[in-house]
Amino acid sequence: MKAVIITVGNEILKGRTVNTNTAYIGSFLTHMGYDVVRNLVVKDDPEEIGWAFETALSVSELVVSSGGLGPTFDDMTVSSFAKHFNIDLVLNQEVLSILREKYGLQGLPVTPERQKMAMLPGDAVAVRNDVGSAPGVFMRLNGKRVLILPGVPSEMKDILSNASFLIGGENSFYYDETIHLEGVMESSLAPFITELMKKYSGKVYIKSHPLGIENNSPRLDVEVYATGTDREKLEGDVRAVIEEIRENWKGRIGK
Amino acid sequence: MKAVIITVGNEILKGRTVNTNTAYIGSFLTHMGYDVVRNLVVKDDPEEIGWAFETALSVSELVVSSGGLGPTFDDMTVSSFAKHFNIDLVLNQEVLSILREKYGLQGLPVTPERQKMAMLPGDAVAVRNDVGSAPGVFMRLNGKRVLILPGVPSEMKDILSNASFLIGGENSFYYDETIHLEGVMESSLAPFITELMKKYSGKVYIKSHPLGIENNSPRLDVEVYATGTDREKLEGDVRAVIEEIRENWKGRIGK
Repeated sequence: MKAVIITVGNEILKGRTVNTNTAYIGSFLTHMGYDVVRNLVVKDDPEEIGWAFETALSVSELVVSSGGLGPTFDDMTVSSFAKHFNIDLVLNQEVLSILREKYGLQGLPVTPERQKMAMLPGDAVAVRNDVGSAPGVFMRLNGKRVLILPGVPSEMKDILSNASFLIGGENSFYYDETIHLEGVMESSLAPFITELMKKYSGKVYIKSHPLGIENNSPRLDVEVYATGTDREKLEGDVRAVIEEIRENWKGRIGK
Repeated sequence: MKAVIITVGNEILKGRTVNTNTAYIGSFLTHMGYDVVRNLVVKDDPEEIGWAFETALSVSELVVSSGGLGPTFDDMTVSSFAKHFNIDLVLNQEVLSILREKYGLQGLPVTPERQKMAMLPGDAVAVRNDVGSAPGVFMRLNGKRVLILPGVPSEMKDILSNASFLIGGENSFYYDETIHLEGVMESSLAPFITELMKKYSGKVYIKSHPLGIENNSPRLDVEVYATGTDREKLEGDVRAVIEEIRENWKGRIGK
């Protein structure tokens, strides 16, 4: 099952904010067994947001977005998504009563800006936000699944966790192990990794991550991972490759 | 002038690595006066990399990629880019002699895996890498500019700096200021921000960044920024808006 992550927000593109949300969502979905195939980061712009959902849904079964879900003029993810797919937004009474309660406790009215957060596609599910105001939005579209999350990390994480049962249910697993090596260059190890990838073709993926040089000695992490329906087999394949690396890597020093 | 950032690497999509490169490149290009309109993150896959460059070049004048530029089997950015646009790769003698020198100093041969880093499009410029082995690759394509950088942050930063004169030269400036507010909710401030955006329409962009709640008091950064050819006018507009916020924000508390 393929997934695409969409990130909405000028602040990511300008480099004001580092895109930690994609790392969190990517790890979360990968460990659920999804293959995360793209991350599309776009501006706070209705046409750009529409393009991102259209593109994401054309190559995946699940789309998870973060950003653009609050009360300000440039929080426009839900409205842009709905406009692009000709979906009507309706005032969700359940969300409205939650907003009334949350703001009411602080003696604040539900202004038009706040009420915007209760305007959802008619057949969407509002996913509980225990941390902030705007709920997450989950819906099915042409047999695919869409989950729209806010950009504030604490709220995004809370809602994603609350939405697990809506996006999970696949009988697919993920497993990885990493071996740390010191004293061998990535380019020295490369032919050996290529050889291992051929030997275990289709079973595991091997990726080396150079970590720089310390005391004239190169440092390297080699990550081995696999995804599939048989959890025990995955773990066995990954461990077998890690073992082969452990036994043979020293022979590549100085090559 | 619009720019798109491409990030190549499964590790970003799986959440193993946070995409700090996009933040660095985004900030660098924004301060050069570019409007960074998208960031496309794709897997280590030739077709995905081809799609990313095709899409990026269709909406921007400058494309900067990072990742997939080293000696391993899955470092395939240059070859995938070249294949997609039917560009022949040739052995760049200048890069080859640099690689010979760098590896020679460590008593290592230039293996086929290492020589791959010297295979560049015929009319590309190899951009110096003072930190690692693979040079950056700069070229023009259909009147647009492409800069391909490695994923290791220290190397990416070094080459980007060395490439400034190739991607700069625009008479465009960027300016921003941020005002920090405590005690007002983003949703309370929202109507005032919308009003200011209308008043300064087309001159500045105003974005509020909620920072969470401390001691029952909401904390908020409001960022004001502008891009244009007249540096003094930009700064004046941004400062005028910051001043209006400073004078009026307290009136929004409890609204």
